[in-house]
Amino acid sequence: MNQTNDKVLGILGGMGPLASAQFMVRLTLLTQANRDQEHIPAVLWSDPRVPDRIAGRAGTGPDPLPWLLRGVDGLRQAGCGAIAIPCNTAHGWYEAMANVAGVPILHIVDAAAADLRRNGMTSGTIGVMATQTTLDMRLYQDRLGEQGWTCIQPDADRMQRLVEPATALVKANRVAEAYLPLLEVVNSLGARGASAVVLGCTEIPLGILAGPASALRVPVVDTIDALARAAIQWAQSGA
Amino acid sequence: MNQTNDKVLGILGGMGPLASAQFMVRLTLLTQANRDQEHIPAVLWSDPRVPDRIAGRAGTGPDPLPWLLRGVDGLRQAGCGAIAIPCNTAHGWYEAMANVAGVPILHIVDAAAADLRRNGMTSGTIGVMATQTTLDMRLYQDRLGEQGWTCIQPDADRMQRLVEPATALVKANRVAEAYLPLLEVVNSLGARGASAVVLGCTEIPLGILAGPASALRVPVVDTIDALARAAIQWAQSGA
Repeated sequence: MNQTNDKVLGILGGMGPLASAQFMVRLTLLTQANRDQEHIPAVLWSDPRVPDRIAGRAGTGPDPLPWLLRGVDGLRQAGCGAIAIPCNTAHGWYEAMANVAGVPILHIVDAAAADLRRNGMTSGTIGVMATQTTLDMRLYQDRLGEQGWTCIQPDADRMQRLVEPATALVKANRVAEAYLPLLEVVNSLGARGASAVVLGCTEIPLGILAGPASALRVPVVDTIDALARAAIQWAQSGA
Repeated sequence: MNQTNDKVLGILGGMGPLASAQFMVRLTLLTQANRDQEHIPAVLWSDPRVPDRIAGRAGTGPDPLPWLLRGVDGLRQAGCGAIAIPCNTAHGWYEAMANVAGVPILHIVDAAAADLRRNGMTSGTIGVMATQTTLDMRLYQDRLGEQGWTCIQPDADRMQRLVEPATALVKANRVAEAYLPLLEVVNSLGARGASAVVLGCTEIPLGILAGPASALRVPVVDTIDALARAAIQWAQSGA
């Protein structure tokens, strides 16, 4: 077992649970491995009880931070050497978690930026599809802006009519129904000049994957895959 | 959050990692839920470093039991109230784990039996596809035999030529290549009189799902789905 990996990845998930399950699938399939023992050890803390991040940020629901910190602590106690969080909106509490985690937390926006570069897009206009909360927190606009990209986002009508209902459908396991509304938004951002669209809410790639990729008129960045690639890079880097 | 579930499911996984990731997907999709907070809290301990169960049982490799017990202990420390193990062969160490777990371990063969009954098959001849080790340990033959079924298994030639290479392909992420060899074995068991075939190694349903179900000439029991259903039943039962 020469290639056995001793770095254990922690995943703070459950937000939503299908997105974190898909993260585990993609982490596995994107890893070069010939047998079990060459795959990456991981602990997934899938806690869908974490209070809704959107209501928490708006002040209309309980604060999710204590739940997020409980998960971080559980992963640290399980011996994890880094943490990935396959939920974009939860990154609104990134600093509060990173301050106490004691291990690195891989940032999903940096993972998306790495995927853009990997695909040869190092500047220009990028569409960002995300929850209104993620957009309001400027998670992508500021962090991608510092790295040379300009972000555009869906208009208010498409956010309310298409993006928000589609992410709720995925959380309710009605994945196939989310495809067409999300496709319309991807292509509308392409028509407005985006050279790629970041699917910056981990429910969104699940909906997009439920239909034909050939209908997408602009390349997309799947933030589940992007975060999985960042995690594999961490796991396979020197101790 | 009236319907929030406070029972946390533990999953001892990584054997292989794709099977346990798929378990998380199916656990989510088979749960009736309208939003995150109605899904089942879970901790997945995915440790693909667990020594090979086949070599361990044969005495030609290290004993997996200490690794299995470490996972059980980690899940208990994380607060899990029951444990599911989406690996059939690991059930060869079921009693050793159950004796120290302190919480119930859902048995995958009982989950398969429940699926057979749910599909109206309460007796008769059942084909069992599994690792040679699972077959040699008589995990299915004895436990299903006690409940009224008779088990038949693939002949030695098909085990070596088809089943064993196919499970290795899945562990190496070459899932699509596993379909045809596994399909041949399912249908050969049907031709020998099996009224259903239990896919009694969690790599096998992954291969079977990679191709058209219409080519299956006999119903199959997917032990990943069966175990997920048993877990949901546990999670949603009274405290």
